[in-house]
Amino acid sequence: MNVSIRGRVRHYRTVTFDAGRNAVRLIEQRRLPHRFQIVSAADFRATARAIAQMAVRGAGAIGATAAYGLAQGARAFRGSDPEKFSARLRLVYQTLRAARPTAVDPVNAMNAVLRAMRAGTTVAEQQALALAAAEEFANDDVRQCAAIGRHGEKLIRPGANILTHCNAGWLAFVDIGSATAPLYAAQKAGKKFHVYCNETRPRCQGATLTAWELAGQEISHQIISDNAAGHLMQRGEIDLVIVGSDRTLGRTGEVANKIGTYTQAVLARRHRIPFYAAIPLSTLDWNLRSGRDIPIEERPEAEVLGAWGAARGIRGPAYVRIANPSSGARNPGFDVTPPELITGIITPEGIFRPGQLWKNRRRLGLRGPCP
Amino acid sequence: MNVSIRGRVRHYRTVTFDAGRNAVRLIEQRRLPHRFQIVSAADFRATARAIAQMAVRGAGAIGATAAYGLAQGARAFRGSDPEKFSARLRLVYQTLRAARPTAVDPVNAMNAVLRAMRAGTTVAEQQALALAAAEEFANDDVRQCAAIGRHGEKLIRPGANILTHCNAGWLAFVDIGSATAPLYAAQKAGKKFHVYCNETRPRCQGATLTAWELAGQEISHQIISDNAAGHLMQRGEIDLVIVGSDRTLGRTGEVANKIGTYTQAVLARRHRIPFYAAIPLSTLDWNLRSGRDIPIEERPEAEVLGAWGAARGIRGPAYVRIANPSSGARNPGFDVTPPELITGIITPEGIFRPGQLWKNRRRLGLRGPCP
Repeated sequence: MNVSIRGRVRHYRTVTFDAGRNAVRLIEQRRLPHRFQIVSAADFRATARAIAQMAVRGAGAIGATAAYGLAQGARAFRGSDPEKFSARLRLVYQTLRAARPTAVDPVNAMNAVLRAMRAGTTVAEQQALALAAAEEFANDDVRQCAAIGRHGEKLIRPGANILTHCNAGWLAFVDIGSATAPLYAAQKAGKKFHVYCNETRPRCQGATLTAWELAGQEISHQIISDNAAGHLMQRGEIDLVIVGSDRTLGRTGEVANKIGTYTQAVLARRHRIPFYAAIPLSTLDWNLRSGRDIPIEERPEAEVLGAWGAARGIRGPAYVRIANPSSGARNPGFDVTPPELITGIITPEGIFRPGQLWKNRRRLGLRGPCP
Repeated sequence: MNVSIRGRVRHYRTVTFDAGRNAVRLIEQRRLPHRFQIVSAADFRATARAIAQMAVRGAGAIGATAAYGLAQGARAFRGSDPEKFSARLRLVYQTLRAARPTAVDPVNAMNAVLRAMRAGTTVAEQQALALAAAEEFANDDVRQCAAIGRHGEKLIRPGANILTHCNAGWLAFVDIGSATAPLYAAQKAGKKFHVYCNETRPRCQGATLTAWELAGQEISHQIISDNAAGHLMQRGEIDLVIVGSDRTLGRTGEVANKIGTYTQAVLARRHRIPFYAAIPLSTLDWNLRSGRDIPIEERPEAEVLGAWGAARGIRGPAYVRIANPSSGARNPGFDVTPPELITGIITPEGIFRPGQLWKNRRRLGLRGPCP
């Protein structure tokens, strides 16, 4: 999307590849929203570190970064010995996969690159195919998000007040985003609307990343505490909820997403406000048979016990301990929203009721025999 | 309640009166949970400042503080001229009332002191009666909270997991608290249970004050982000919700309380978890006919856009700006929970269904003709 820096507006993706320098270029997301900075990963180990240390985060964004990282590692190989080249590829693959061991996108992305490389016979051909495949993976991410925008935009009535949770924005993908795609498309269509960003404790991705995105695109928005959404719904001040998803079960229509999403869905149902999840096809899990089987990560207590931000007198991000020093915390990172609370799933292939995903599994990208 | 400081355990009230020095002594609540400190207000102006600047906060606590402040101002008067004494009393009253202009407790508390003073004829007699009445007001606050504890304790089954929101604890009253009273009573009765404290963004009174209180009383507890309660309910990990109230409508049973309370009630209903509000009688509003008529304070944006806490390298409380610097916020301070979501109201006179309050209005303290 466009980013304005000291008055100059330029278009950015979260990740791109500099073929001349064989470098992966990334938006340094840990500095946002307080500073916008592009960093360059000079080799595949640096790219893996950027993923591991969350300089880049978000399913689509780390998928594309891993794809570029694999191409980067392949292209850095000097020589023509296919066996040595294969050994090098395995090392690069393992290093990038280990950077976020539980994420599925880097693995899918790198597998796509490896598949494409099979068409080449020489090392040089395979190197060229790797980069082309990584670019294709990134472009496909952008195309899917654009398609989500085209379908989801129709849900936005002029003057609507839209609630969103966490960040499923362009920063989490290569561009455009999933939950934000309908917003950006509606803006392009000339519609006026207002967005409430749940701050999304404990990591506050709504207050930091989503608000930064919307401000950058000049979309009218305000941050609210996660506690305030229910009150605004009660007063008729929210017309539509759109969230992203970390994993959507194709068999059941259950949506796993950032902690607090379930609460928003329960509130929306009480107030008969439409509740949508926007997802690229890679988010669909065709294997699991129940949301109870989705492992819910218990994250560090420090996230709940304090907060990060910009403080006077401190350089860079500062952590304040908010909570009573002798108290501990529970910190589940995700929750699961059942299909009966979800009005629809916005996909690149159109909007589906949660119960219709399985019936449309071929159209939604399930290949091979049913798992 | 008991506070342990460097191993020495002592009993404290949030506010007491030092008759020898004619001083109001207060727990400096702005320093909690990071520091426990008793401060002394040497004259009624200092007492008013402590209320205005929120060194003391919470309905019962500021009521008792204002009562003591009025006695303090009366006792500081030198002379026996009744007219000059009356003029002084008016000044003291106005100064203390102006400290928190929208709060009703200081006004009710001071009116009780003034009523009691009418029994005296000389200035000296009235001065003595003022202090006695202020002490009586504080003692009555404690008695009411203890009675809430006796009634509410019966709701707590051994092994229960209890959710609470914000701070309606002993710090908000003279002692014991409202929502916390059943917890402290259950502990005295030897029951084991666990408390989840919603951190209660944006001001985080759950993570700071309630957690500090529970840690001080050695009650098993953990802080959660407000987003996590729904997930815990979904997994069967919460058995009971108890909250306080800033204003409860005697006519309708609607409960106004800290923002986010309504959300917890909606979640509790979905999961068939009992939801109670614990209130002293002073919280009952017999006048308003609808929760829509309760003015909802819109508080400063900075509360949502950042957080206060303890930071390395900074003395005293530090503020971090969490949010995107160019984004604004909405910050409604309270919400209204409708009676159909409330299992019961725990009062000093027993537990009532919200719809039974009006029928029991005489028992619940409504004097004079119906408003």
